[in-house]
Amino acid sequence: MTIDELVHQVGEWLRGEGPYADIVISSRIRLARNLEAFPFLSKASDSDREQIYRVLIDSVSELKIGDDTLVVDIDDADELDRQLLVERHLISRQHAEGDGTRGVAIAEDEQTAVMINEEDHLRIQGMRSGLQLAGLFEEVNRIDDQLQQRVQYAFDKRWGFLTACPTNVGTGIRVSVMLHLPALKLTGQIEQMFRAAKEMHLAVRGLYGEGTDAIGDFFQVSNQTTLGQTENDIVEHFGSEIIPKIVKFELTAREMLEKDKSTLLDDKIWRAWGTLENARTISSDESLFLLSHLRMGVNMGRCKDIDLSKLNMLFLRSQPAHLQKLEGRRLDGEERSVARARYLRNILESNN
Amino acid sequence: MTIDELVHQVGEWLRGEGPYADIVISSRIRLARNLEAFPFLSKASDSDREQIYRVLIDSVSELKIGDDTLVVDIDDADELDRQLLVERHLISRQHAEGDGTRGVAIAEDEQTAVMINEEDHLRIQGMRSGLQLAGLFEEVNRIDDQLQQRVQYAFDKRWGFLTACPTNVGTGIRVSVMLHLPALKLTGQIEQMFRAAKEMHLAVRGLYGEGTDAIGDFFQVSNQTTLGQTENDIVEHFGSEIIPKIVKFELTAREMLEKDKSTLLDDKIWRAWGTLENARTISSDESLFLLSHLRMGVNMGRCKDIDLSKLNMLFLRSQPAHLQKLEGRRLDGEERSVARARYLRNILESNN
Repeated sequence: MTIDELVHQVGEWLRGEGPYADIVISSRIRLARNLEAFPFLSKASDSDREQIYRVLIDSVSELKIGDDTLVVDIDDADELDRQLLVERHLISRQHAEGDGTRGVAIAEDEQTAVMINEEDHLRIQGMRSGLQLAGLFEEVNRIDDQLQQRVQYAFDKRWGFLTACPTNVGTGIRVSVMLHLPALKLTGQIEQMFRAAKEMHLAVRGLYGEGTDAIGDFFQVSNQTTLGQTENDIVEHFGSEIIPKIVKFELTAREMLEKDKSTLLDDKIWRAWGTLENARTISSDESLFLLSHLRMGVNMGRCKDIDLSKLNMLFLRSQPAHLQKLEGRRLDGEERSVARARYLRNILESNN
Repeated sequence: MTIDELVHQVGEWLRGEGPYADIVISSRIRLARNLEAFPFLSKASDSDREQIYRVLIDSVSELKIGDDTLVVDIDDADELDRQLLVERHLISRQHAEGDGTRGVAIAEDEQTAVMINEEDHLRIQGMRSGLQLAGLFEEVNRIDDQLQQRVQYAFDKRWGFLTACPTNVGTGIRVSVMLHLPALKLTGQIEQMFRAAKEMHLAVRGLYGEGTDAIGDFFQVSNQTTLGQTENDIVEHFGSEIIPKIVKFELTAREMLEKDKSTLLDDKIWRAWGTLENARTISSDESLFLLSHLRMGVNMGRCKDIDLSKLNMLFLRSQPAHLQKLEGRRLDGEERSVARARYLRNILESNN
């Protein structure tokens, strides 16, 4: 598989299927691991980095994380390709923008991605559309076990897996769920959700992880600590308690809007449609914001002029790197806004 | 003619014809006059007011300002009717909201309106679509002369016509032109126009005269002083110098936008269309703002999906009193916003 081929598939994280798919965009689990034989990356020499990369790429290639795995040498990769992988949530922004020998191996279905030399030597990521944590955990564990047969992890009997950042020490697990919560935002209840999440020691972030804003009512909820709990406890707690609770909170807000504020609700949805269908230049943030309202309209059955899979495609392809790939050339910010508006208009008009 | 019949005609001030009609909405001239036999209104007793009203209504009725004159006793009139006359620029807001015996006589074609007991005993107003000051001045003068044959005006050989407010003493004339200047607004040059107007002792006001904001890029430019110049000088100066200069300024800004910022221009125009066609609730101010951008699009030939006369009708009928008249019942603010959105949507969708 090539990176250019990715552009033409929808991507696991926006497939729009699986349990609670109207509210839970996707579930993600990642494990942080380091090799015993090498220093952490902050202390590693260039030669260390290269050896780590070699050892891990070979091991990952051997165990076959997918039928047609895409291996990308990130240090060598084109900037647009790196950005595209971030937009598909296959690598972190840090990994795209970092320095030195580093890479990623991606399964064809985009459900698995293994980053090498990000913050830790190894980060194994599993991703599924909707709320599917249990099966996902099994899959990530399977890869972790298979790798462990090939390489020696840095592990301490008392502390567990050793990681570059102390917050990951222990299980090295991070469970993240991307949620679409437009009704909580519209009713002003989102702050209440933030406070509750904070009390449960959860981190709430924006669409592209750490340091990004919650654009378009998308919120990524994840665990903050990995020490003192088993992986199973964390996954179970997330999948059976925390997320269903937030989902219910959003559903209640949607019911309230439908009952008491249906005009306001339709106004948001249709103004979004009107702007997306007519703008001649539009930023990435604004289009995300408006597509979010449209998504709410589709999910609540109030807008039947577009289906969810087409809408998800718009979310992904209106992002900067995807847009440039589709246009087949590099565009500056202004050109992107014009191309984005044209693309959105064409798709939405063909639906009318 | 009845007030309800007015709702179904477009109104002189928005007819959209006459010289420079794409930029000059309408021209207006009003003369302030008082009767010699009665004190100014600030000093007049209730009985004085009634006598003034009687004398002037009789005189105006005799001279026939139109074929089917509408006479409205404003003190007696329904609040909605008063508001409707303000929206059509047939009476001032002050006249609608004032106290005591007062009224207005309106010619069927809405080109002439005579207010009685507004700030002065008598205010004769002539209005024409586009820039048509010379003919308009003749018409207003004719009515003034005819009235002068029937009543004795308060007039001083040295000061001229005496008026309640010193700024009107002299000729008692106010020349106002309503302009649509979206390109000067978009290019940020409008402040420059304001400064130039101030230097020429002109007043720049909003859509509904004194104390109203310039909503939707509509600006009313009028003379501030009436003393020391003849009426002819003032009218001539306005019609041949000031207004053509502002019109040219706006046209140059439009050319610049078309040449250098055509995407921004189309973006404004089509976003306005998209919102007007899709909103489920919309305020009067927002709809004016958006209709203004659409008007620019139509006038510049960039939007051919609606014609100017239909658009002018939307301007007028989306105003609060017109909207309630069309709906056939009183509506509170929220209901009006919903009814306005529905009305706009229906008209624009039928154009698609």
